[in-house]
Amino acid sequence: MSVNVDQPLEVPPGLRNVIVTETELGDVRGQEGFYHYRQYSAIDLAKSKTVEDVWFLMFEGRLPTAEERDRFVEELAPLRVLPSEVREILPAVAAAGPEFNPLAGLRTALSVLAAARQLPPLWDADADRRKADAMLVCAVTPTILAALYRLREGAEPLEPRADLAAAANWLYLVTGREPSAADARAIEHYLIATIDHGFNASTFTARVIASTGADVVSAVAGAIGAFSGPLHGGAPDRALASLDEIGTPDRIDEWVRAKVTAGDRIMGFGHAVYRTEDPRSLMLREIAQSLGGELVDFATTVERRIVEVLAELKPGRNLYANVEFYAGVVMELCGLPRSMFTPTFAVSRVIGWTANILEQSADNKIIRPAARYAGPPPPAPIPS
Amino acid sequence: MSVNVDQPLEVPPGLRNVIVTETELGDVRGQEGFYHYRQYSAIDLAKSKTVEDVWFLMFEGRLPTAEERDRFVEELAPLRVLPSEVREILPAVAAAGPEFNPLAGLRTALSVLAAARQLPPLWDADADRRKADAMLVCAVTPTILAALYRLREGAEPLEPRADLAAAANWLYLVTGREPSAADARAIEHYLIATIDHGFNASTFTARVIASTGADVVSAVAGAIGAFSGPLHGGAPDRALASLDEIGTPDRIDEWVRAKVTAGDRIMGFGHAVYRTEDPRSLMLREIAQSLGGELVDFATTVERRIVEVLAELKPGRNLYANVEFYAGVVMELCGLPRSMFTPTFAVSRVIGWTANILEQSADNKIIRPAARYAGPPPPAPIPS
Repeated sequence: MSVNVDQPLEVPPGLRNVIVTETELGDVRGQEGFYHYRQYSAIDLAKSKTVEDVWFLMFEGRLPTAEERDRFVEELAPLRVLPSEVREILPAVAAAGPEFNPLAGLRTALSVLAAARQLPPLWDADADRRKADAMLVCAVTPTILAALYRLREGAEPLEPRADLAAAANWLYLVTGREPSAADARAIEHYLIATIDHGFNASTFTARVIASTGADVVSAVAGAIGAFSGPLHGGAPDRALASLDEIGTPDRIDEWVRAKVTAGDRIMGFGHAVYRTEDPRSLMLREIAQSLGGELVDFATTVERRIVEVLAELKPGRNLYANVEFYAGVVMELCGLPRSMFTPTFAVSRVIGWTANILEQSADNKIIRPAARYAGPPPPAPIPS
Repeated sequence: MSVNVDQPLEVPPGLRNVIVTETELGDVRGQEGFYHYRQYSAIDLAKSKTVEDVWFLMFEGRLPTAEERDRFVEELAPLRVLPSEVREILPAVAAAGPEFNPLAGLRTALSVLAAARQLPPLWDADADRRKADAMLVCAVTPTILAALYRLREGAEPLEPRADLAAAANWLYLVTGREPSAADARAIEHYLIATIDHGFNASTFTARVIASTGADVVSAVAGAIGAFSGPLHGGAPDRALASLDEIGTPDRIDEWVRAKVTAGDRIMGFGHAVYRTEDPRSLMLREIAQSLGGELVDFATTVERRIVEVLAELKPGRNLYANVEFYAGVVMELCGLPRSMFTPTFAVSRVIGWTANILEQSADNKIIRPAARYAGPPPPAPIPS
């Protein structure tokens, strides 16, 4: 379709289905229940690769050789360590507020990092510098989040372990215990499967800010804000809270019907793009079942019954469990505290955000749409 | 034009001229050199009203009565005072980094404020609460910025003065001196004229984040990031640095030609929307001339000659001085240090951002566009 760039252009509300950019990072096929990173199925990557492999894939455009992976892991180790300027400020950041707010804390700490390291605007930086800054932000994010959690709990932050890969290191930093291989692999599946997921609101935010040429932390700080929005999705603790509320299998129907009647959303079900089962949910259910236990049995029963009741109450809507539902179950089984469920999502998604920021910066055009004025016509006389 | 929401929609790059939303806050008419807040000429408001009047106008949709203005000013006074959690952290924030970064510092401090005051998601807050949080963020922003500056200079932050209106208080907080009436009024003109300006990239960022239902600080923190981008505009110190570089009137032509030949942008000239003189620049030139002095005479000569040379070198491009050019001159004359020029822009623009955030929240629809995958087709077999 040819367009006249000088005429205001009407599009669907919320820019729905409006193509903002081309990307080589991946896509979500909502009708097929399939999503991919580059040319690979994201779920297949989660089942066969490490976080570092997929991180390299997102940044470099191809999977690393064994040598390249080793070098990548080696480069990451020092970047995980908290810079002193950030370390100094963290106790005050962790203590702020009546409730622990790890996402606001992460944004605060990264904002200090940007000033302390004097991160240059993306516009003024070459590709190597942009990538180095993105690596730093992704590497230090889990260290910051875990340190905030431990400080808030009255414990000392732990030093990242260079001998542990991303998922195991994350579990160690939060819980203080070296995780079992099964737990580390379960969280690794989750982390890989949530690195990116199409053009969601936080990814779009990151690209809009990057398009002004601002530094990488400015773009990530904005993305964290969008990610914290209740309409964004990605809060696995909400789904687990639903399981607590339901309590026993005989209460499922009553609970769902009451929610739907009240017009409340059922957390952990439904998705903006998928019209099928969410492939992330299918993978995480398998993982949960391989870990096993009462919680998994209960969650499986609840999921099946909620899908049935929703199909009856909201026919044609195709509402299935989304990534939040079994993510909460898996994180609980792996010993993560509930306040760190959403931060665990941020640990992986920051890789997707920065991959998008790097792609936006490589061939940048400022993203600057328009609004239509709909108020009384100007100029009106100004009352004295 | 009717659109099928299920089909991906091609639009011009950077969403140029794509209508994202309706707004009653104002508009920019680039062909006419005119912009307005609500139904009033922004320049006429700047010439006849106070910052508080226009702030009320943006939030409430109408100018206040004398009584309403008094009550508004009274409500603002306590909100200007630094909350203790923010005060405690500011020395470390101000000290971070080899160079003073007031915008990153503002973002850091507001992020702490969000956690300390436990600001609710916009999605969960009623209209009164959203407005109260927006008032707080706007009221405390100048106090934070001035405190960061003074701490960085080794001085103690000053307490906001309830007896001074927005512009005079700002000059006092930064310089430590109560300003002359002429200086306060000059800065007041500037502040009012820069509260809002159509759908620029930072305003759009604020609305995208607000559309996820996140809290007001999340949206403002993202806007600050976009605002810091070199492609955003609004850095009056850059224009003044050009005057320094040029040095004497006989060097103007040589300087401009060298810049244009090298493909560099001339800071302070040209605008994304205006095809005429920038009405803000015209007003600020008048103000500069009323303050008078050598710098003003030189700036006027430079402006006139740069416009002439640009018309010759880039015919048909209609490049004129933008808001940055005389803003830098006016701020310099009023005794603001150069590191606080861009922060002065943030002091007013935060009112526009939050007015947009409130408007977005009042009738919200998540802003979530799409991207087109342009890489190799999936699913490719994963190499082992």
